[in-house]
Amino acid sequence: MQLDFSSQVLNIRHKQQLLFSHQADAPAFFLGKGTEKMEIYRGNFDIEDYIESRIALTHIAQLDNHLFSFAPNAASPALLEVQVIVDGDDVTLQPRVLDESYNRFWVRLPAERKEHVWGCGEQMSYFDLRGRHFPLWTSEPGVGRHPHSEIKWKADVMGKAGGDYYHTNYPQPTFVSSRKYSCHVETTAYADFDFRNEAFHELQVWAIPQAVQLRTADSYLGIIEKLSAQFGRQPKLPEWVYNGAILGLKGGEVNTFSRLENALDHGIKVSGLWSEDWCGLRVTSFGKRLFWDWDWQHHQDRYPNLPAKIKALNDKGIEFMAYVNPYLCEDGKLYPVAKELGYMALDKDGQVALVDFGEFYCGCIDFTNPDAMAWFRDTVLRKNMLDMGIKGWMADFGEYLPTDNIYLHNGVDAKLMHNAWPTLWAQCNAEAVAMNGQTGDALFFMRAGYTGVQKHCPLLWAGDQCVDFSRHDGLVTVISGALSSGMLGNAYHHSDIGGYTSLFGNRRTKELFDRWVEMAAFTPVMRTHEGNRPDENFQFDQDGGTLAHFARMTRVYCHLNPYLRSLVDEAAEKGYPVQRALMLHFEHDPETYAMQDQYLYGSELLVAPVHKGDVSEWTTYLPAGEKWTHVWSGQTFTGGQRVTLPAPIGQPPVFYRANSQWASLFAELKDLA
Amino acid sequence: MQLDFSSQVLNIRHKQQLLFSHQADAPAFFLGKGTEKMEIYRGNFDIEDYIESRIALTHIAQLDNHLFSFAPNAASPALLEVQVIVDGDDVTLQPRVLDESYNRFWVRLPAERKEHVWGCGEQMSYFDLRGRHFPLWTSEPGVGRHPHSEIKWKADVMGKAGGDYYHTNYPQPTFVSSRKYSCHVETTAYADFDFRNEAFHELQVWAIPQAVQLRTADSYLGIIEKLSAQFGRQPKLPEWVYNGAILGLKGGEVNTFSRLENALDHGIKVSGLWSEDWCGLRVTSFGKRLFWDWDWQHHQDRYPNLPAKIKALNDKGIEFMAYVNPYLCEDGKLYPVAKELGYMALDKDGQVALVDFGEFYCGCIDFTNPDAMAWFRDTVLRKNMLDMGIKGWMADFGEYLPTDNIYLHNGVDAKLMHNAWPTLWAQCNAEAVAMNGQTGDALFFMRAGYTGVQKHCPLLWAGDQCVDFSRHDGLVTVISGALSSGMLGNAYHHSDIGGYTSLFGNRRTKELFDRWVEMAAFTPVMRTHEGNRPDENFQFDQDGGTLAHFARMTRVYCHLNPYLRSLVDEAAEKGYPVQRALMLHFEHDPETYAMQDQYLYGSELLVAPVHKGDVSEWTTYLPAGEKWTHVWSGQTFTGGQRVTLPAPIGQPPVFYRANSQWASLFAELKDLA
Repeated sequence: MQLDFSSQVLNIRHKQQLLFSHQADAPAFFLGKGTEKMEIYRGNFDIEDYIESRIALTHIAQLDNHLFSFAPNAASPALLEVQVIVDGDDVTLQPRVLDESYNRFWVRLPAERKEHVWGCGEQMSYFDLRGRHFPLWTSEPGVGRHPHSEIKWKADVMGKAGGDYYHTNYPQPTFVSSRKYSCHVETTAYADFDFRNEAFHELQVWAIPQAVQLRTADSYLGIIEKLSAQFGRQPKLPEWVYNGAILGLKGGEVNTFSRLENALDHGIKVSGLWSEDWCGLRVTSFGKRLFWDWDWQHHQDRYPNLPAKIKALNDKGIEFMAYVNPYLCEDGKLYPVAKELGYMALDKDGQVALVDFGEFYCGCIDFTNPDAMAWFRDTVLRKNMLDMGIKGWMADFGEYLPTDNIYLHNGVDAKLMHNAWPTLWAQCNAEAVAMNGQTGDALFFMRAGYTGVQKHCPLLWAGDQCVDFSRHDGLVTVISGALSSGMLGNAYHHSDIGGYTSLFGNRRTKELFDRWVEMAAFTPVMRTHEGNRPDENFQFDQDGGTLAHFARMTRVYCHLNPYLRSLVDEAAEKGYPVQRALMLHFEHDPETYAMQDQYLYGSELLVAPVHKGDVSEWTTYLPAGEKWTHVWSGQTFTGGQRVTLPAPIGQPPVFYRANSQWASLFAELKDLA
Repeated sequence: MQLDFSSQVLNIRHKQQLLFSHQADAPAFFLGKGTEKMEIYRGNFDIEDYIESRIALTHIAQLDNHLFSFAPNAASPALLEVQVIVDGDDVTLQPRVLDESYNRFWVRLPAERKEHVWGCGEQMSYFDLRGRHFPLWTSEPGVGRHPHSEIKWKADVMGKAGGDYYHTNYPQPTFVSSRKYSCHVETTAYADFDFRNEAFHELQVWAIPQAVQLRTADSYLGIIEKLSAQFGRQPKLPEWVYNGAILGLKGGEVNTFSRLENALDHGIKVSGLWSEDWCGLRVTSFGKRLFWDWDWQHHQDRYPNLPAKIKALNDKGIEFMAYVNPYLCEDGKLYPVAKELGYMALDKDGQVALVDFGEFYCGCIDFTNPDAMAWFRDTVLRKNMLDMGIKGWMADFGEYLPTDNIYLHNGVDAKLMHNAWPTLWAQCNAEAVAMNGQTGDALFFMRAGYTGVQKHCPLLWAGDQCVDFSRHDGLVTVISGALSSGMLGNAYHHSDIGGYTSLFGNRRTKELFDRWVEMAAFTPVMRTHEGNRPDENFQFDQDGGTLAHFARMTRVYCHLNPYLRSLVDEAAEKGYPVQRALMLHFEHDPETYAMQDQYLYGSELLVAPVHKGDVSEWTTYLPAGEKWTHVWSGQTFTGGQRVTLPAPIGQPPVFYRANSQWASLFAELKDLA
């Protein structure tokens, strides 16, 4: 790392790459004053900023060896000091504002026209972020997510729920550049990373960030290794997960267990039964939702024999999973307890701040109060769930912390805690599991995230896709979610097989389910979801063909267990994601740099899921410099070309490196009945 | 006008009103640097700005008695000088930038929370501008114009044509405040006037404006009088207009003239026959459009006997009107002539800059070249139109001047000429009429406008409403258009009876037409339009009931001739609009300040058009301090209340001042058969 300062120019280089540059006519830092307007409606935010001033800090002065000050011009006093800390191949900039009336911060980093950028959390629409800007604020991801989507338009009209390309449950102010460096901004404030300008990336933060960290490595995988060491690595997948798919069934006890039996009878390999409705259901106009009062003792109606049923399941080698989120519904029994204890976030009148979740209201556990977190962890997650034999859950939500009229125990502005919330929520879950000695055994999965969620959350799930093949809210988006989050050290990703959101007559088809299940066989966890309107949407067990297809895909999944275990080991050791962007292993092949509808499963398998309807063949790009064998036909192709092959349901386009040490395992896939 | 400067504070007051204020912690001026992105698609613009810097000029210094300089702070050099020119009750600020690298300018004017603001050209969605911001850039107004409109969504998907509340053919950087002053910013640059802040109005201009003019008067009408004196007053309406409605028919000669005869047979009073297709038709997917090659000699096919027909019409006391716009289609005969003469705007390669109008392309007459304007005026408007006996026309468009890759004769950036174009186009038309000695006799009407269009354009029309009752693109919007443009000295406004745009199965109904025609009887000009898809939409002559209703409404219009003449005289003398916002005559009644679905017709008639479907009665607000007589029932009500009365078709809610000098004329209306 080379730091050069002379003639009012500060450059920081690593090898040939210019990582940071300030000069008077191209300043690195800007400070400003802004007044934001944030409105939340059911997890969707309208956010506007009024920028009263934005000042280029053109004048630099060296105060000390690695300490610089920045001023608008030579005549004006400095407004910012920046400490530069070089640590091997990494460098950290620590800004300190000298006039605290400034609440907007921009830093520019040098960019090149052909640069690619990845990361920023779990991005569902775009893996390569270049050419767009990405507001970073945890929220609902929105429905439809493109201005041309009729579903988005209707969702907007109905409830401001349409969303745009950048909305995500899991944003993170961290990216990786094709110039072989990563940038992480340490802050929980609202941020907006702008990759539209040819000459620079401009990172905006609505606070002065604690640090801007630039890390380098010789390879992208090396960068991921560093980032995952920083943000934390996930425990290995539990052993039981390898047994097959997790079946999501929320039909109450009789329905759920008989359907499970039916699935087993059809040869579906099942590792877990996931019943969201373990402690109650609530029907709203959106669909079937759950009763947010996390205590089976009080809501035994749907699963009257749950403890015995869990035990019986376990005897068959199947685990039981449930559902929880960090809110308590007003009409539940835990709500008054938490209220009495003062464990929920309050409004300006000292009342519990109620959050609108769509036809019902909830209090929000105040995780800034260690006692509140401990209470929820010990009472809900441990006593009410783990101690009952529940082996994991969807740890839902985390994005809904309102920013207005909410007062938190730690006294910090909710606008600064909002983005921090998913990680606190993950921490609460991880602590519960750890305190029960079940880390690496109990498995919870989250959609919300932020910096540091990596350390606590053992498994991401891609959130609530529409039950379709749409470009910005359908099957293909979960690949982008896996790849982008994987760049930041989230090794494990999966999705609702078949998607979730069915609105305005958009219904899951058999074809969609079949395509999704065959993709899921090549991800670390297979899990179905009935969706928000189970009765109107295709379910795996309503069709003999799908039962057989699903069963076969669980066999594919299980057949790959040895390989998956090796990826899990690698993840534990180095933080490499199980699903990987192609360019992680093909840095020399520019074709791979923006690819987001194909992925590598580990280093050895190439997966190109069919993500459109009514398709009989599919074109896959085979990265250059390798020979690839098509799993189902056994044909081998030279990389660096696109190949079009039959892709009927049951033969998702999957290739392996012809010379892989795992080749014989992969070659057996085609013979799995 | 009182100007106070002391202790770094500059205040300008008129009577009790603070019109301008600068102090260090609430500066009046900001300068900045921005890079805009403007993309045009068929008259709809995508506009984005990247603001690199925005500097509050907090430090003021007095250079001379009325000359001040402004700097970011005491230590920095001044960036702006402002000359303050007091002229009686008005004041003008003339800014001059000292560093020409600044291309963004903001000025703040003091505001009050309950202030109302009107104007900014012809605003179709909102008459009271307070609480919103208004980008000021002439363009297509858009279809649907509200995010919840399905038609907007479809128009956006089909061709970026959806529009928003602020899009307008006629923007103008001029407003009137309820604090009894007007503000006009002299510029043709892109501007955005922001009335959202409680404490100030913020006016943004993408250039340093020549002047910021603040005018005061004791009454709003007094302000209008001043503004209309400044921007120019329209000639009186031609005598022939009083004879009845202008019928828009574009069926070719036989169809058009037989339908005219039929209308006359049904007692419809007709002043003019307006045949847009006088020199040809072009059918596109949008609907029937025209052939933009303005010479009947070359396109006689639709009206083979036009000169004789015009003469025959005139013998019946009916005038013939046509259509023209400032573009020439590539496949016409005038295009190569204008091209040869070098009279069209060019691109960077010196070729004619072609503009996409939706399935056909046109050159754009370069009005910055006086020879080009003279050629179009003399050849097209005078020789090809007026000399043929054509008595007026729709002078369409003017908003489509592209901003990229277009080079104008006067060398000025097209971004600065874009907003100037409508006024140049109006000037071209007005000159043609004047040079033929037909001012006040030949009548053209325009939808596009900008500062100064008042002087040249004798009649505005409200543009292309949807054929419906929708809030942001239907019948009601033309009232807002009339009232807002009227505040800036546009005395004459009218609209397409029945609306124009029919897309996506949205079709004009008999009811809509009937409601529109009964409103139009109470406007200065009645004119029908067949719409973009005549065959799919209701036409006045396809229903006996409508023929009779229309006929009666033309009799209403003609019955009011003496009153309308008095308003025309008033407009000529003082610039008062014929259609007036209620608060112009009821300053003391706060209920009237934001009202935009009722208007005063002159000072004596109150009109509250029915602007919803399936309505049998209607509620009208009667301004306070007056007694109001309902035209159809003769009932008299005290003002200051809402009254609900039957409002069947044929009885639009109209009231007159009970003690009006015109009361007997108005009282006769109910007896008109």
